[in-house]
Amino acid sequence: MERYFAVRKYTEFICEPLLIEDYVVQPMADISPPKWHLGHTTWFFEEVILLRFLKEYRRFHARYSFIFNSYYEGLGERVERANRGALSRPTVAEIHEYRAYVDQHMILILSDMPEGAEPLIEWGMNHEHQHQELLYTDIKYILGRNPLYPIYHVDFHETPRIETDHGFFDRSAGQYTIGNSGERFSYDQEQPVHTVYLQDYSIRKSLVTNAEYLEFMNDGGYQNNRLWLSDGWALVKDKKYASPLYWAYVRGSWYRYALSGLEKINPDEPVTHVSYYEAAAFAAWKKMRLPTEFEWEAAASQLNWGLRWEWTNSAFLPYPGYKKPAGMLGEYNAKFMVNTMVLRGGSVVTPAGHSRHTYRNFFYPHQQWQFSGIRLCK
Amino acid sequence: MERYFAVRKYTEFICEPLLIEDYVVQPMADISPPKWHLGHTTWFFEEVILLRFLKEYRRFHARYSFIFNSYYEGLGERVERANRGALSRPTVAEIHEYRAYVDQHMILILSDMPEGAEPLIEWGMNHEHQHQELLYTDIKYILGRNPLYPIYHVDFHETPRIETDHGFFDRSAGQYTIGNSGERFSYDQEQPVHTVYLQDYSIRKSLVTNAEYLEFMNDGGYQNNRLWLSDGWALVKDKKYASPLYWAYVRGSWYRYALSGLEKINPDEPVTHVSYYEAAAFAAWKKMRLPTEFEWEAAASQLNWGLRWEWTNSAFLPYPGYKKPAGMLGEYNAKFMVNTMVLRGGSVVTPAGHSRHTYRNFFYPHQQWQFSGIRLCK
Amino acid sequence: MERYFAVRKYTEFICEPLLIEDYVVQPMADISPPKWHLGHTTWFFEEVILLRFLKEYRRFHARYSFIFNSYYEGLGERVERANRGALSRPTVAEIHEYRAYVDQHMILILSDMPEGAEPLIEWGMNHEHQHQELLYTDIKYILGRNPLYPIYHVDFHETPRIETDHGFFDRSAGQYTIGNSGERFSYDQEQPVHTVYLQDYSIRKSLVTNAEYLEFMNDGGYQNNRLWLSDGWALVKDKKYASPLYWAYVRGSWYRYALSGLEKINPDEPVTHVSYYEAAAFAAWKKMRLPTEFEWEAAASQLNWGLRWEWTNSAFLPYPGYKKPAGMLGEYNAKFMVNTMVLRGGSVVTPAGHSRHTYRNFFYPHQQWQFSGIRLCK
Amino acid sequence: MERYFAVRKYTEFICEPLLIEDYVVQPMADISPPKWHLGHTTWFFEEVILLRFLKEYRRFHARYSFIFNSYYEGLGERVERANRGALSRPTVAEIHEYRAYVDQHMILILSDMPEGAEPLIEWGMNHEHQHQELLYTDIKYILGRNPLYPIYHVDFHETPRIETDHGFFDRSAGQYTIGNSGERFSYDQEQPVHTVYLQDYSIRKSLVTNAEYLEFMNDGGYQNNRLWLSDGWALVKDKKYASPLYWAYVRGSWYRYALSGLEKINPDEPVTHVSYYEAAAFAAWKKMRLPTEFEWEAAASQLNWGLRWEWTNSAFLPYPGYKKPAGMLGEYNAKFMVNTMVLRGGSVVTPAGHSRHTYRNFFYPHQQWQFSGIRLCK
Repeated sequence: MERYFAVRKYTEFICEPLLIEDYVVQPMADISPPKWHLGHTTWFFEEVILLRFLKEYRRFHARYSFIFNSYYEGLGERVERANRGALSRPTVAEIHEYRAYVDQHMILILSDMPEGAEPLIEWGMNHEHQHQELLYTDIKYILGRNPLYPIYHVDFHETPRIETDHGFFDRSAGQYTIGNSGERFSYDQEQPVHTVYLQDYSIRKSLVTNAEYLEFMNDGGYQNNRLWLSDGWALVKDKKYASPLYWAYVRGSWYRYALSGLEKINPDEPVTHVSYYEAAAFAAWKKMRLPTEFEWEAAASQLNWGLRWEWTNSAFLPYPGYKKPAGMLGEYNAKFMVNTMVLRGGSVVTPAGHSRHTYRNFFYPHQQWQFSGIRLCK
Repeated sequence: MERYFAVRKYTEFICEPLLIEDYVVQPMADISPPKWHLGHTTWFFEEVILLRFLKEYRRFHARYSFIFNSYYEGLGERVERANRGALSRPTVAEIHEYRAYVDQHMILILSDMPEGAEPLIEWGMNHEHQHQELLYTDIKYILGRNPLYPIYHVDFHETPRIETDHGFFDRSAGQYTIGNSGERFSYDQEQPVHTVYLQDYSIRKSLVTNAEYLEFMNDGGYQNNRLWLSDGWALVKDKKYASPLYWAYVRGSWYRYALSGLEKINPDEPVTHVSYYEAAAFAAWKKMRLPTEFEWEAAASQLNWGLRWEWTNSAFLPYPGYKKPAGMLGEYNAKFMVNTMVLRGGSVVTPAGHSRHTYRNFFYPHQQWQFSGIRLCK
Repeated sequence: MERYFAVRKYTEFICEPLLIEDYVVQPMADISPPKWHLGHTTWFFEEVILLRFLKEYRRFHARYSFIFNSYYEGLGERVERANRGALSRPTVAEIHEYRAYVDQHMILILSDMPEGAEPLIEWGMNHEHQHQELLYTDIKYILGRNPLYPIYHVDFHETPRIETDHGFFDRSAGQYTIGNSGERFSYDQEQPVHTVYLQDYSIRKSLVTNAEYLEFMNDGGYQNNRLWLSDGWALVKDKKYASPLYWAYVRGSWYRYALSGLEKINPDEPVTHVSYYEAAAFAAWKKMRLPTEFEWEAAASQLNWGLRWEWTNSAFLPYPGYKKPAGMLGEYNAKFMVNTMVLRGGSVVTPAGHSRHTYRNFFYPHQQWQFSGIRLCK
Repeated sequence: MERYFAVRKYTEFICEPLLIEDYVVQPMADISPPKWHLGHTTWFFEEVILLRFLKEYRRFHARYSFIFNSYYEGLGERVERANRGALSRPTVAEIHEYRAYVDQHMILILSDMPEGAEPLIEWGMNHEHQHQELLYTDIKYILGRNPLYPIYHVDFHETPRIETDHGFFDRSAGQYTIGNSGERFSYDQEQPVHTVYLQDYSIRKSLVTNAEYLEFMNDGGYQNNRLWLSDGWALVKDKKYASPLYWAYVRGSWYRYALSGLEKINPDEPVTHVSYYEAAAFAAWKKMRLPTEFEWEAAASQLNWGLRWEWTNSAFLPYPGYKKPAGMLGEYNAKFMVNTMVLRGGSVVTPAGHSRHTYRNFFYPHQQWQFSGIRLCK
């Protein structure tokens, strides 16, 4: 129960620096208004736990399911994703009432755990972890794309440590064991444990820095089609991309918006908010490549990861022997197993303990708004 | 000065029933977030009066001009119209400070009127009148398209009087005088006074009612291409239009959202929130037509108008001898003199005294979110 | 009968310089492949005359109605306009067979005219006239937008005479009679005859020349938003328009593609292929305006028109007392009476005798591919 | 030299049944007009061989490079892919002259092979092989989407043999050798040879039949979101997909267009023209899955493949140790290594000898117009 409430409170803690207006907007379709995250994570417990396990539970509000369902086709109609920012109601205060109402009923469950509820609650808490990270990334987008560049929190450090060892680490060819046994909580896509064969490879100990990325930019990286994948190049030309997200060239210097405000680029920090296309173009420019997710995992214990999500050169596809979970959990990850790429590691806004060696995060190759970075391989 | 403050206060009065969240959203590109209206009307006085007539006036905030400029190309860059709802900042509170700051400086102007300022202030107040009406229509859209159908104010009556005389009123062919002399405030597009020749016509004393419009719907009006203009029919098929905006068919009855909430259709009230295409199709179904703006104006003194803006069968074009004003006022209306249709009359949310016999309102033929209605002619 | 065959032959004469490939393509949605025009004009006689008046007539091919219907909702389904260029079949040869088949059956009708057929045949011939003009404009687009700039015919003169008198011609205020009595063939939208009141005006004897238009361009006409209507300016920025259609800047000089090939601009010729937006911006730059269609018609007998279609400052709307024809002819023009602007005069590719003082042509304000020009008024 | 001319002639042989009009159209952006294929394959030899290896070679036409370049950013500007069908010129006859001109000059090369030319010519012939297959698929689209359903050739059999053994074939876990040594011609993406570790699996000996696919359709396969990947489901809803491409439901029976004409579905033939999304949904409905490309290759010698390209559950990504070729060949395949899925096998229209065990074909997951089919795995 303690853990449940710790998770729930942390979600609210993340939102504390926000003003009411910040909870409402959705400046691009990929992100959600913070108040939607507050409601959606609550709806998950209402829908998956309370309505199944708590007799005589009555929904807080008949229409909230329509408003806070995210993408579960199996759980009924819903507001189109891109229209979440069109809704001023329910208000932030009403959503906090909703949270309190659901949490009070969850006490009944947690103090007398019904059979079968525990793994779903575990899932719900992990689900809320993921939305905590999304809250950070979405809040950053809301504030960082505003022409007033409001600060989230002056003491928020997006790069708590600087990497100084840029050497490479070698692994020899052979069979490696990949994946998660599922003894402790892990997502379906991390399972089952299986063998892969890897060739010799060298993986860098550190992430690519802003200084290196600036070198790429100054060398005409965004103008040289030979470095880019076809779909990436089309995007660069169409959207006139010329830097990572949140970078701004002001009076002769590059700045970047961080949750602590608009500041000059620090050359030693790892580059952030690059798309897969940018990561791949950078690697091509360096005459190297991105690691596969298997190379990453086989080396994970020796890498000092966790600063940035790291794009891998692996598509998000099922492992051999993968079993799609029954019911709504089968929609959770499995239906995204096409067109997305795997990211490994974790980022400065990943909740403590949420990621692990076997964790497979995934996003579309054009997306930049996660704290994504680049690790090289050769 | 009293009038200036009366106008400014009324804007804030309209917003009083709103919660903070309601000020922020923009559920379609045609409408603006209420907080944007609050800022934009203020920016008008800052930009057009204070910066020109008040020496040593300093802007409240360097970036507000970028945020609150609407469409004046001559006044610099601006946030794209469709992105106004992407901005959580400035907050409602900050915009109220902005209003107070500008109003305090306006006192200096109003108590010692500089030469040339008075007509521009008059313009600014009329501009704010227009945004008061837009505030009502935009607030209605924000609340009325929300799945929770929140009430703006239970006592708000969208139809303060019911028309019972549905007879026609005849006018004979001959020369009529149209337009505004400009002695009292009027917009450039109402001028100059000029002669038009009209044929015999009959114009209905009342607006088309919900009952009549329902008859059109029940007779397959939205399925019969022969009644529709080509561009209107394309829209009906593409968007699957089948009723006026804000109508909902719930358990066997038609409801409509009004500022007082979701209520059953009252058959005696004038139909509202129809596009020009719908108005024209309805008139064709009735084997009649819409009046031209000249027919309307020539009969205006005998019509009991002011409940709804009335679509006319006139395109918004310059009168003979029209002079486009110099400077930014030349952008105000003149640049919309293509692709828009004239509406005459005024609506229940038009500020008292803002409309007049000669007033030419204009919108694109597909737009429904104004309080627009239908008057027949033959 | 002679006239019928003269009309039909002229259509084929226009296509004579084409190669088979030229009959097939549709490089933009507004134009149609020449082979479609050949089929569609034939389908009109099949559908409107033969199927109604010739007992036991059997369609040439069951599917041709689906392929060659243009926009008559009342006459069944049809290939989407923008997909006409997707169809390689029927071939040009098959369509010529179709033409011959229909023409042979038309002989039976023409040699023993059934009651009621004559006005529809007249309509059909006028319809084919219009498609003859469209054939020229569409062929020009097909060849003139090809990077090889193939010549249609070296002897085709787009400007058979040069205007040298650029003076103005005055008309005094008063009542004028406008419109067509319908005694001889005219379209429904030209009727009925009615009175309009006009103010004093002066209308230029000549069209605007290339030299004048170049001056506008060189004076930054396409960069100065103050000259443009709002929708026009949006288009200029979006599409990067900087000259009339078919103009190309090659090694320091302006060229234009004409049906006789790519040639240097002749400064004395009237400018062609401008949109209404361009015409209006040019007039604003000259501190004049475009004439209304009524001013044009009231002066028509003294103007030397017929070189270019002339954009007027009048929207295409019904005349007072207008009667929409019954049946499919009611779809012919009436359903376009919104969002389009009237052009008067006629062009170098208008079939002889097709236009007249009262003729009301209409296109959307962004369209450039007609032989449209500019006449000034003040 | 003989092989070169055999390849070149076969391209023209494929086009023989076409009429001139069929060479010109492009009914969707993914396909190209046949005359463009004729020109483009020729341009390849001009650009890559003649201009490099034949001194004093002069281009056939200065603008053809602009017209016939496909996607090589490194080789200059080009007509936008989607606009290829907008060009009536050059004509089919002119392109045949172009072919003859280039072939004549190729004789000089082939009879005295310059150093370094041979592998590029080999590449060029393989390139032309690929366009031969595309000619078939594009011609099928051009004819099969025409409302007249013209026949390509009555004797063309899309399914020369029927599979009757629908059993499965087992492979045991272990290391397998994958990839092509490059001793004989193969594409860069097939290289290098490397080891992969596979788990136990069973792969079906036959492709999925029309009968099985119809069962899926009749069981509501296209209505059941649980079977679909998220992006696939969005497409099904948006485009209202309800069957493979070229299927038509006519008077109670399913037909499909084949190059031999519109015919009733043969239940025993392998289903064709399905997207990856459809293949994956079908496999999910069968409670099986698609093979990975490695499982396919490891079993290839025992499969009787070559009727259909078979969607695999592998993204098109570089093999370990992959080397991107220098120059334009590096653009050939490498830049598509994102967002595409691998197909293995070959189809009835793949030129003899063009495919092989190691061949990696790739298309976007929504594409249906290839002769793509489904093989199951478990």
